[in-house]
Amino acid sequence: MSIITVLTDFGLKDPYVGIMKGVMLAINPSLSIVDISHEVEAQGVREGCFLIDEYYRYFGPGTVHLCVVDPTVGGSRKPLIVTRGDQTFVGPDNGLFTLVLRDGAIAREIANSRFLPARMSGTFHGRDVFAPVAAHLTRGTAASEFGPPVAEPVRIGDLFPSIEDDVMTGEVVRIDRFGNAISNITFDAFSAFVGTGTFLVEVDDLSFDALNTSYYDDRYTCLVGSSGYLEFGLFLGNLAKEESIDKGDAVRISRLARPA
Amino acid sequence: MSIITVLTDFGLKDPYVGIMKGVMLAINPSLSIVDISHEVEAQGVREGCFLIDEYYRYFGPGTVHLCVVDPTVGGSRKPLIVTRGDQTFVGPDNGLFTLVLRDGAIAREIANSRFLPARMSGTFHGRDVFAPVAAHLTRGTAASEFGPPVAEPVRIGDLFPSIEDDVMTGEVVRIDRFGNAISNITFDAFSAFVGTGTFLVEVDDLSFDALNTSYYDDRYTCLVGSSGYLEFGLFLGNLAKEESIDKGDAVRISRLARPA
Amino acid sequence: MSIITVLTDFGLKDPYVGIMKGVMLAINPSLSIVDISHEVEAQGVREGCFLIDEYYRYFGPGTVHLCVVDPTVGGSRKPLIVTRGDQTFVGPDNGLFTLVLRDGAIAREIANSRFLPARMSGTFHGRDVFAPVAAHLTRGTAASEFGPPVAEPVRIGDLFPSIEDDVMTGEVVRIDRFGNAISNITFDAFSAFVGTGTFLVEVDDLSFDALNTSYYDDRYTCLVGSSGYLEFGLFLGNLAKEESIDKGDAVRISRLARPA
Repeated sequence: MSIITVLTDFGLKDPYVGIMKGVMLAINPSLSIVDISHEVEAQGVREGCFLIDEYYRYFGPGTVHLCVVDPTVGGSRKPLIVTRGDQTFVGPDNGLFTLVLRDGAIAREIANSRFLPARMSGTFHGRDVFAPVAAHLTRGTAASEFGPPVAEPVRIGDLFPSIEDDVMTGEVVRIDRFGNAISNITFDAFSAFVGTGTFLVEVDDLSFDALNTSYYDDRYTCLVGSSGYLEFGLFLGNLAKEESIDKGDAVRISRLARPA
Repeated sequence: MSIITVLTDFGLKDPYVGIMKGVMLAINPSLSIVDISHEVEAQGVREGCFLIDEYYRYFGPGTVHLCVVDPTVGGSRKPLIVTRGDQTFVGPDNGLFTLVLRDGAIAREIANSRFLPARMSGTFHGRDVFAPVAAHLTRGTAASEFGPPVAEPVRIGDLFPSIEDDVMTGEVVRIDRFGNAISNITFDAFSAFVGTGTFLVEVDDLSFDALNTSYYDDRYTCLVGSSGYLEFGLFLGNLAKEESIDKGDAVRISRLARPA
Repeated sequence: MSIITVLTDFGLKDPYVGIMKGVMLAINPSLSIVDISHEVEAQGVREGCFLIDEYYRYFGPGTVHLCVVDPTVGGSRKPLIVTRGDQTFVGPDNGLFTLVLRDGAIAREIANSRFLPARMSGTFHGRDVFAPVAAHLTRGTAASEFGPPVAEPVRIGDLFPSIEDDVMTGEVVRIDRFGNAISNITFDAFSAFVGTGTFLVEVDDLSFDALNTSYYDDRYTCLVGSSGYLEFGLFLGNLAKEESIDKGDAVRISRLARPA
C-alpha cells in the first residue's frame, strides 16, 4: 500500500485539502493518505520547514510527502520534487525543503507537461501540480521523469542559532497545543557548545541551569523534546500563555564556566 | 477500493464524525473514507451547498458523498439519496443538494426500513441513517432499493447574483483560511454580463477595474478563484481581517461602457 | 483490514498525531487509521473517559483503540492494554479507561521490552510506546505477550451523579460544537430515579418538567442525546453561549411527586 503524507497551511474549514485527496485518489485509488497538519501558520514557510524535519523520518521507505505552503503560487517559483534516500518530497521551491536538502538529497523541477493539466490555475498548484505528481510517484513513475535537477534550490539561511563568544542565541520556533515553547536549538548543538561545564538557559523571564527529563520533574521545565530540540514547558499548565512566550522570542544559552 | 467523502458541520472536537466512520467501516471494512470538512458553519446549509459543488467533481466514478448539515433533524425533512452521473450523494432534504440537483440528477427518499436501525435517535441521523446508507451503497446496493424518487426535493432559491440594469449584485459566501473572500459570481456569469466592455467590481471599500491571474500580481487582487468564482485577496495578508469583509457582504459589478 | 482508532489531546496543529501514524504504518502498512478526536481538552483525562465510552461501541470486532491523554507522561504511571470483549484499548493508566474497565475487561501493563524502543523519550510515549503496541496488536500479537495483568488499574471515582433524598445531582461534562450541554446522567439512571412520577430538571437558569425527543420540538430542549445521556440544547442556536452554561455546571433532578 502506497502512502502519501500531506502537510499544508490550508486549514480544514475549506475544501482545498479534500480536493487534493480527490485528485490523488482518482490517479491511484489504493493510496493511503495521512494528514500531518493543515494548520501550519498561513504562509508560514519557515514553520513548515521545521515541521517537515520533525515527522518525515517516522515514515517507511517509499513514502511520498506532499508539502504545500506556497505564498508565491502563481509567481515564478519552481514546483519541486526532492528525493532523499528512499523518501520523496513534493512542493514549492521556496525554502520549505531547506532541512530536507541535506545528505545527498536531489531536487528536480517539475516540468514535464505530460503530468500537468492543460489549464492550470494561478492560485491552487496543490490541486493542479503537486497532488497529481505525488500520486504519479506512488504509481511508479521515477522522479527523473518529471524534470531536470535544480542546481540551487531555495534555502532559508537563518534557521539555526548563532554563537557569539560565550552566548548561543536561538529562538522559539513553535508553540504547541500544550503551550510548550519549542526552540531551534538541537541537543547536539547545545551539547557541543556547553560541553560538560555549567550553563544558563534563558527564555523571556525564565532561566534554567539544568535540563529536565520530563514535564513531570518540575513545575517549569527545560528539556530535550521528543524531536531533539530544547523546549520549555509548564507541568499541567500552558507555559506560553501563562508566561507570555511567543514564537520568535529569543532563547539564550550562556556558558558560565568550564571544568578545569 | 470504494471511497466515501464526508462533509459535516460536526466539528472535530466531538466524537460524532468518528462514530459515523465506525458505523460505515462495520458495514464495509475495506472502505476508504475521505474527510472534506467538518467545519461547515454550524447549521450552515447554504455554505454547505457551495462547498459540495466545489469538491465533488474531483472525485472519481463511484464515489459516495456523505453530507450532513442537518439543523432540522428529528423534524419531517426527508432523508435523501441523490444520484448524478456516476456519483451519489447522501444527506438531508433541506436544500443542501441544490447545486447537485441539476443535469438529470435523481433524488430518492430513504425509506426502506431494511437499511435503517430499529430504534432511531431524534438527534443523530448521520449515525442512524446517512452513514449506514452510504456504506451500503459502496457494497453495491442500488440507489433505487432505498426508496422512491422525490419529485420536488428542497432547493435554496437565492444562491446566485441578481441583475438590475447595468449592475449585477452578488455576495461574499465564504471567507477561507487565508482571508480570501469568495463570491457567488462565477466567471461565466461575470463574462456573460460584462462581455468585452469595461467594468467595475466593488466589495466593501475596494474596487477593481480588471481581473488578476494570481495573488502574486498585486497587493489587492480580484481574480477567478480555483473553483471558478470571483474572489478577493491580499498578497501575503488576510484581506477579510484587514478590510473587515464579512460573509454576506455585497459584491457589485457595474458595466461601465460597451465597445462600439 | 485492521482498524485502529485514535483519540488524543494533541490537537492537529502539531505533527504529533502524524508521527504516531507514521510509526503505526511502518509496522503495519495495510492499517486503516480512524481519527476520533485530537481536541480533547489538553490534559483532560476526565473528558477523554466519557468520549471513549461514547464511540468505541460503534466499531467492529478486532478494532484497536489508541487513546492518549497523558499529562503525567514521564512519571511512574503504567502503560496499559485493556481487553474488553473483542476490542482492545491502548493508553496510559491514569483513569482514562475507567468506563471501559467493566464487564470482565482485563488490564495489562505494557512491560515486554521486545516491543519498546531502546531509547525512550520522557515526553512522547504516544510515539514510543502506545502507537507501536497498537500496531503490533493488529498484526496478531496477543495482549498477553505485552505484559502481566494489572490488579488495580486507576479509576476516576466521581464520574457519575449522586443522590440525596429526592434530588439527583450530576454535572455538564461536555459542550459540543453546537453548544449543546451534555450531562453525566444516563437515561437509565434518570428513569430509575424518577420512575413514572413528575420531575424537574434544572441546569443554570433553565428548568424542564418533560423530556423532548428532538431539538426540533421546542426552542429550549432537554432530551436523551444520541449516546444515552441527558443533554440540553437550543434549536438553531448555541445554548452554552447564549445561556452561559459551562463544563462542570451542576444538573439537578428533583422528584416532585410519585403516583399513588
